[in-house]
Amino acid sequence: MEFQDKAQSEDASVGFQMLSNIRIVMVNTTHPGNIGAAARAMKTMGLSELVLVEPKRPIDDEAIARSSGATDVLESAQIVPSLEEAIEDCGLVIGTSARSRSIPWPLLNPRQCAEQSVLTSKRQKVAIIFGREDRGLTNEELAKCNFHVHIPTNPDYSSLNIGAAIQVICYEMRMAIELQVSGDEQLWGVEWDRELASSKELDGLIDHLEQVMVTSEFLDPENPRYIMTRMRRLFNRAMPDKVEVNVFRGILSSITKKLGR
Amino acid sequence: MEFQDKAQSEDASVGFQMLSNIRIVMVNTTHPGNIGAAARAMKTMGLSELVLVEPKRPIDDEAIARSSGATDVLESAQIVPSLEEAIEDCGLVIGTSARSRSIPWPLLNPRQCAEQSVLTSKRQKVAIIFGREDRGLTNEELAKCNFHVHIPTNPDYSSLNIGAAIQVICYEMRMAIELQVSGDEQLWGVEWDRELASSKELDGLIDHLEQVMVTSEFLDPENPRYIMTRMRRLFNRAMPDKVEVNVFRGILSSITKKLGR
Repeated sequence: MEFQDKAQSEDASVGFQMLSNIRIVMVNTTHPGNIGAAARAMKTMGLSELVLVEPKRPIDDEAIARSSGATDVLESAQIVPSLEEAIEDCGLVIGTSARSRSIPWPLLNPRQCAEQSVLTSKRQKVAIIFGREDRGLTNEELAKCNFHVHIPTNPDYSSLNIGAAIQVICYEMRMAIELQVSGDEQLWGVEWDRELASSKELDGLIDHLEQVMVTSEFLDPENPRYIMTRMRRLFNRAMPDKVEVNVFRGILSSITKKLGR
Repeated sequence: MEFQDKAQSEDASVGFQMLSNIRIVMVNTTHPGNIGAAARAMKTMGLSELVLVEPKRPIDDEAIARSSGATDVLESAQIVPSLEEAIEDCGLVIGTSARSRSIPWPLLNPRQCAEQSVLTSKRQKVAIIFGREDRGLTNEELAKCNFHVHIPTNPDYSSLNIGAAIQVICYEMRMAIELQVSGDEQLWGVEWDRELASSKELDGLIDHLEQVMVTSEFLDPENPRYIMTRMRRLFNRAMPDKVEVNVFRGILSSITKKLGR
């Protein structure tokens, strides 16, 4: 599925630039395909800086295939001989962790990780470190981090591959910025093409509906119970626009005309 | 990287059971490998119910390989001939959407999608629908949904594959429950006193309304334009309960009876 963003605006707008300060670090990766998947996951969310610490195999055709066009991220990826070098310029370092360690560390969920990262990225580099496919990061590597982040999973089946983990972490980075840029959650919800019906127009619709309900002998005006309240609640929470109200009133008028004959 | 959950407790605790009421629906999938990736993404987050609407190719070795041990999800996957059948018992239906459509629909971000889904899943089935790899869901399919969900992506590169999209959506489902269980967050959305109408019941109401619109000569069946889509959207986003649907159908029956005389 190729998702296209609804807003086709330049991603260089205020806010999203911060993503260029967030670096993904992969340590001792075994399968180049996973490096490609990481590049794709990063780029879909607007991240671009990938650093590889001693990958076991170099970037190859499989990596390029899995990157699905995010080859610019692969091409600009730095390969460094040590984790220290990968993170030395970063103001915030967060390591992904699956297990409880001998010494507990401040643990963030992916959302908290993103919020802290986005805040720090306004002025400084941030690194999120992902470990080996089979056994993650060592205690020594985790001890170099400010925080650890843990992606919640099903305890009976926690087979989250590294590409999926990077996708989730990068998605949260983008969400944190989207919500920050929009100020609140106005960006989401109903962004309507028509003006919403006024309260008066809605009242007119409900009155009209009530007449038809009485004329058709569905509603006994002597014993209305809560039926009109239910109808009002239904239309109110649908927040109809002016066109929808007009269509509905058109239907009711046609019915009234037919019934009158 | 094999993430193991820190809390090695049983996943059958209060809250996580709700995930069994959340169904992933994949429409017309081309590559069986993507079905396998979906099963893996679901199971890591604790979801288990997968429904396939007319997959172009059956579940094969590639699907099993990509599922990486989530074979139970593949084995219990239902294959159905139509989207209607996949969602007919659901009280909430949310479709993944990439593009702006001719008629806008209430749009949720993945977090809002998860919050509403988790609330509804306490008592009823929920379906999240994913479209074809190349062109998503049709307008007609999207019109069957209460809401649409859009995963924010980089507008310059939005190559989010279907497995990654399902991973993000399912991750948010788990996060919503984790936060609810821990008491950290108030969930957004409507928690209703009555059972919500199923997708099938809503279809019945829309069909009935259409008949009345034709009989009363409001709607020209030769030139329906977008009128029925607008009506469907109106009722879908109101998320009517069973009582409200019954009242409306009662009104329509009374009108039909009167018009028939």
